[in-house]
Amino acid sequence: MNIKVLLNRTTEWLKGQGPDADIVISSRIRLARNIMDIPFPHRANDESRRKALGIVGKAIKASKHMHASLYVQLNELDVIDKQFLVERHLMSKHLAEETRESALAVGQGEVISVMINEEDHLRVQVLRSGFQLRDAWDLINILDDEFEKSIHYAFSPVYGYLTCCPTNVGTGMRASVMMHIPALVLSKQVNQVIQAVLKLGLAVRGLYGEGTEPSGNLFQMSNQVTLGTTEEDIIVSLEKVIRQIVTHERNARVALLRDSASELQDRVWRAYGLLKNARVISSKETIELLSALRLGVSLEILKGIDVLTINELFMQTQPAHLQEMVGRELDADERDFFRAELIRRKLAPERKGK
Amino acid sequence: MNIKVLLNRTTEWLKGQGPDADIVISSRIRLARNIMDIPFPHRANDESRRKALGIVGKAIKASKHMHASLYVQLNELDVIDKQFLVERHLMSKHLAEETRESALAVGQGEVISVMINEEDHLRVQVLRSGFQLRDAWDLINILDDEFEKSIHYAFSPVYGYLTCCPTNVGTGMRASVMMHIPALVLSKQVNQVIQAVLKLGLAVRGLYGEGTEPSGNLFQMSNQVTLGTTEEDIIVSLEKVIRQIVTHERNARVALLRDSASELQDRVWRAYGLLKNARVISSKETIELLSALRLGVSLEILKGIDVLTINELFMQTQPAHLQEMVGRELDADERDFFRAELIRRKLAPERKGK
Repeated sequence: MNIKVLLNRTTEWLKGQGPDADIVISSRIRLARNIMDIPFPHRANDESRRKALGIVGKAIKASKHMHASLYVQLNELDVIDKQFLVERHLMSKHLAEETRESALAVGQGEVISVMINEEDHLRVQVLRSGFQLRDAWDLINILDDEFEKSIHYAFSPVYGYLTCCPTNVGTGMRASVMMHIPALVLSKQVNQVIQAVLKLGLAVRGLYGEGTEPSGNLFQMSNQVTLGTTEEDIIVSLEKVIRQIVTHERNARVALLRDSASELQDRVWRAYGLLKNARVISSKETIELLSALRLGVSLEILKGIDVLTINELFMQTQPAHLQEMVGRELDADERDFFRAELIRRKLAPERKGK
Repeated sequence: MNIKVLLNRTTEWLKGQGPDADIVISSRIRLARNIMDIPFPHRANDESRRKALGIVGKAIKASKHMHASLYVQLNELDVIDKQFLVERHLMSKHLAEETRESALAVGQGEVISVMINEEDHLRVQVLRSGFQLRDAWDLINILDDEFEKSIHYAFSPVYGYLTCCPTNVGTGMRASVMMHIPALVLSKQVNQVIQAVLKLGLAVRGLYGEGTEPSGNLFQMSNQVTLGTTEEDIIVSLEKVIRQIVTHERNARVALLRDSASELQDRVWRAYGLLKNARVISSKETIELLSALRLGVSLEILKGIDVLTINELFMQTQPAHLQEMVGRELDADERDFFRAELIRRKLAPERKGK
């Protein structure tokens, strides 16, 4: 199956809708699950891995909520395809590097995705637009129950769900939100906020999770602890922290508008001017400028541009997306050229009315 | 007389017309002259200075070519007015600082101007658009003859015209051109060119003559020697050097278009994007961006913008011009704000068709 079909479909979590979507881009919950009596993927032989694929594949087909619109075996994909799926947050870098039997299933609108034979047999993910952790949890919970009808999960009455890595044992759950907090960055409060978040036992990461630096004022906040707690507790405590950060960011935006209106407007309009006119642009600069543009649209400094367009550009301007769009491998210079062209096209006046 | 009238008139030398106007913005010739039997201005008492004013004023009135459209006594002007006239290249900084009897006369289109009681009794200037040194010389020569009908010039058969400063004795002439040579700067050939020009005995200066650093890739080249040579020789040798620099710049532009088309287009379009969208902009950044825009228009990378508009913006975005336009004193932050607004207005789509 050609994964390019995803290029022309609207991705649910980029819509810029849902509660606090001006600050919380997306909410994500993933569950790590394994199948009883089959070795963890890294210890399983090919036959065991195929067996796991079969069991999970059947469960997905039987699911009422999954409606897989895409199911791919990893060995069907080339390097760019894999990177493309990583860029869409549908696949981990870990899975992209896997050479043995493994697969990815993606539901409609890319809300639900399931990695099979990644670190665990199943990594189920629900990704929603805006601040909707509870909504995401409700959906993944239903899905988990559906899967459990045909999959005998590896579960210990003492520890909870058993996972390959001890850090996931227990609930097997990781909940995270992607936040856009430019005003906290501009007003130099962000480090203080991050320190507070870390003290509360949460992890703070960049756009692509573990090991990535924050850029474009985008920060991913997630729970660290999975053991000795309940899913409910994880969500409640994460929601509480996020709600506080949202308030801080909102206050910082008001303060910027009040105390530095000219500088703020200048920053936003310059970002727009560069994005609309650059002929060559790097990925790093793009993210920074899109971040300023997004803030400007949120604050109505700049009107007529859809948040969806900006959110999509964050994703579409990445290397593999550009290469899938153009239909061939591109070197760095070519990517910078096509990236600039794509941005100009997406921000063209015809689109502004939308 | 209110000098603001100049704000709404087209300045001849900014028209972007004339030979090689894409590279040679303007050609300027000025003559230093003094009146026999009146002490040089800095040694003259008020009565002598008034006498000089009277004699020169009468000569100007009698001139068929001058048609003074503006005649101001320096003590009628406030600080901003004086700076405004300096920014328009109609008055020297030296004259702007003069507190005693002195005056400025400006002809139609600001082609001809005469400073009275600056360093010398007369400083006559002809300023033309493009590479038109000879044309400027022809006009100033006629004017000089006209003036000589009523003014008895201080002249020595041995030394030539006598001037206050020995560096002007002889012809009393300075010829200069303002060149826009961004391609020589971008291709890092400009220092080599300047060294060669200096070796030929010419002076290289910035936008405002003596003591100013070049910015916006604008360089003023002028003769140094006035003694022991003829006006004809000065013009011939300056023309020769300028013609070579024009050729070098043209070659450098072709090379840039051939070897770095993307970078060049990117630079031009980014400059346009920033100028069209910035809400706050410094004078320094403005000059650099206008320079890139001017190159882009010359090379037809960017169409629909008049060179006149760009040339005018170089002048109108300066501090005193902004203050004359707004009609009050502005602090630096306010100037950056109004400068950005003016640029956006002048580059607005309505104007692009012109």
